[in-house]
Amino acid sequence: MEKDVAIVGVGQSPFMRKCGISIGELCFLAYHEALDGTHLKNKDIDASIICSATEYDKQRSPAGVISDYLDLRKKPTFCVESLCSSSSSGLRIGYSLIKAGLHDVVAVIGFQKMSELTSAEAAERMGRSGDVMWESPFGMTMPAAFAMFARAHMTEYGTTEEQLAKVRVKNSIYGALNDKAAFRKVVTLEEVINSRPVVTPLKMLDCCANADGAVVLILASRDVARRVTDKPIWIHGLGASSGSATLAGRETYSSISCAREAARIAYDMAGLGPEDIDVAEVHDCFTITEIINYEDLGFAKPGEGVKLLEDRETYLEGKIPVNLDGGLLSKGHPIGATGGGQIRSIVRQLRRECGETQVKNAKIGLVHNLGGPGVYCFVTILGRD
Amino acid sequence: MEKDVAIVGVGQSPFMRKCGISIGELCFLAYHEALDGTHLKNKDIDASIICSATEYDKQRSPAGVISDYLDLRKKPTFCVESLCSSSSSGLRIGYSLIKAGLHDVVAVIGFQKMSELTSAEAAERMGRSGDVMWESPFGMTMPAAFAMFARAHMTEYGTTEEQLAKVRVKNSIYGALNDKAAFRKVVTLEEVINSRPVVTPLKMLDCCANADGAVVLILASRDVARRVTDKPIWIHGLGASSGSATLAGRETYSSISCAREAARIAYDMAGLGPEDIDVAEVHDCFTITEIINYEDLGFAKPGEGVKLLEDRETYLEGKIPVNLDGGLLSKGHPIGATGGGQIRSIVRQLRRECGETQVKNAKIGLVHNLGGPGVYCFVTILGRD
Repeated sequence: MEKDVAIVGVGQSPFMRKCGISIGELCFLAYHEALDGTHLKNKDIDASIICSATEYDKQRSPAGVISDYLDLRKKPTFCVESLCSSSSSGLRIGYSLIKAGLHDVVAVIGFQKMSELTSAEAAERMGRSGDVMWESPFGMTMPAAFAMFARAHMTEYGTTEEQLAKVRVKNSIYGALNDKAAFRKVVTLEEVINSRPVVTPLKMLDCCANADGAVVLILASRDVARRVTDKPIWIHGLGASSGSATLAGRETYSSISCAREAARIAYDMAGLGPEDIDVAEVHDCFTITEIINYEDLGFAKPGEGVKLLEDRETYLEGKIPVNLDGGLLSKGHPIGATGGGQIRSIVRQLRRECGETQVKNAKIGLVHNLGGPGVYCFVTILGRD
Repeated sequence: MEKDVAIVGVGQSPFMRKCGISIGELCFLAYHEALDGTHLKNKDIDASIICSATEYDKQRSPAGVISDYLDLRKKPTFCVESLCSSSSSGLRIGYSLIKAGLHDVVAVIGFQKMSELTSAEAAERMGRSGDVMWESPFGMTMPAAFAMFARAHMTEYGTTEEQLAKVRVKNSIYGALNDKAAFRKVVTLEEVINSRPVVTPLKMLDCCANADGAVVLILASRDVARRVTDKPIWIHGLGASSGSATLAGRETYSSISCAREAARIAYDMAGLGPEDIDVAEVHDCFTITEIINYEDLGFAKPGEGVKLLEDRETYLEGKIPVNLDGGLLSKGHPIGATGGGQIRSIVRQLRRECGETQVKNAKIGLVHNLGGPGVYCFVTILGRD
């Protein structure tokens, strides 16, 4: 069903442990793949939105450097950031710039280069997304936050470590088929269970890993979309919400309130419900997160997320296939590119370009993208003609 | 003349050398002043946009922490950054979110707390907004960049150091009347000329100084604006453009090309020209910048900016009064709040709230806000009923 704004091009660099190239070069890979899939030329891009989290590489204010490198000088550009959901906030802004009539074609460029830092340095920076006065100095890193969520879910619903591990097993099966994923090994339940503890109950293979990568989404107004692609993917719903930046301020730890709210808004805007979604990408930064996401999105009732997985309903052949690109757990998590990567995967599903992991007759897809431990959430609903 | 989106509230903390409070508290001061000037309550704010440059204080991704502190939890929020023009890019996005129909009321919150760093640490970070591979490691700090611009302008047009100093003298006269400015001393030509060299030909009093501060702009759709204020200030024109992030890539140094382009777009959108502007705020990060800005905005022909100043045409009684709030040179420059501070001053001029510095019958005002040494530029044209 036609809407006002479409995604007309998507491109992605491989997601890598270490890219060995500059941030401009990294974005170039994704940008030209995105452009090449359309009838657009570089000069047709009216503006760019650069989405990345801060302090992972030396370049401050990367919008200037990247738009320069992509030969988008003169065109408006700026940086947008909402942690791991940076490129979903970029999509929201790109949609608005077009719908408001300021631009016809906008490139949303998400990237992160994390390999300049050690894991400890990256973890310290991630922690400082939480309140630096009241929480992050006391050790509330991301694995610690999500381990608390896992404990709460276990306490409330009896979820087990083995059940969490099943998320990784599922996603690794599909990740092995994704030639842009950083981690393409199929893992077994035993391997997940026996992997090194990170923050109990989460083990190494329950956690996604840092990565370098870039994704570009090209958005266009309806008229331009009709001219430049045969397969426009329309933006049906955009939901966004925020939660307390300090975990001490949350009402519950077995659900992420801003995800429920963002989903509600996105479904309302699209005039659709969870039962209408043919395929989804959800933010599996940790195995527990995917289970909670099923429940927050209404794919399962509270406490029934594990059952949905164990019934194989989120596998390719199930009623709501989830993370058929391998998820963050397989792809790796280049923060600013992650949301764009999820959106790209749903666009490719709706264009029916996914080969072995293609959901038959997929018409409506959903993307759920968290920023931090539920500080931000963006839910996007997309549809084909 | 009524338009689709209005600024209905403005608030500003004092700009200070050292605020001694948290970033949440700093924004709170501006936020409540902005709300108090309208019939809006906290619950009426649909979304917030947090605008600040990065790495000046410890808090990463401040949108979560600040929206939490302002009791805007649950509402969408994210961070926007374009160096010194961060809050002007926030205004552009806020306008778009409302015009696109996603929100009715948006708070654009610009802030910076720079006092946690020494001047040298702040200068190093500012440098890293230039390309960290090709330019910033070789010492291209902001004073160095603008000293080059000054040298080029002197070479091309015969501009002198004394003439540059006259910008500071003018702005200090008005800054002395601004009770929220960090620097309220009227300075003489001799004091400017004799101040300590920074990068020749720029001396200490040719340069604006770092500051702590916050500004909040509340935007609303036409219908809401009509309900919540008697003095809506309408957004007539929004121009944005970018320039090469490396100065080596510029075509000229006596003009800032993205400013000319942003001005052209803003005038086109508003259906107005430089001759229609009753009052302006321009980005006087250094004295030379204000002279170049006159020329880039079409207030004077190239090379005739100094004459405009010496003819006192940019004084309160002149044909195009500029920086009647004292400019960055008097107010101080809390990066992410600076553009918002300029916009607030024009809103107050158009509402006729400026007392001794009020431009009589001001109907149309313009804001020119640079990011870095012309990496970004945003030009905004505002008008009253």
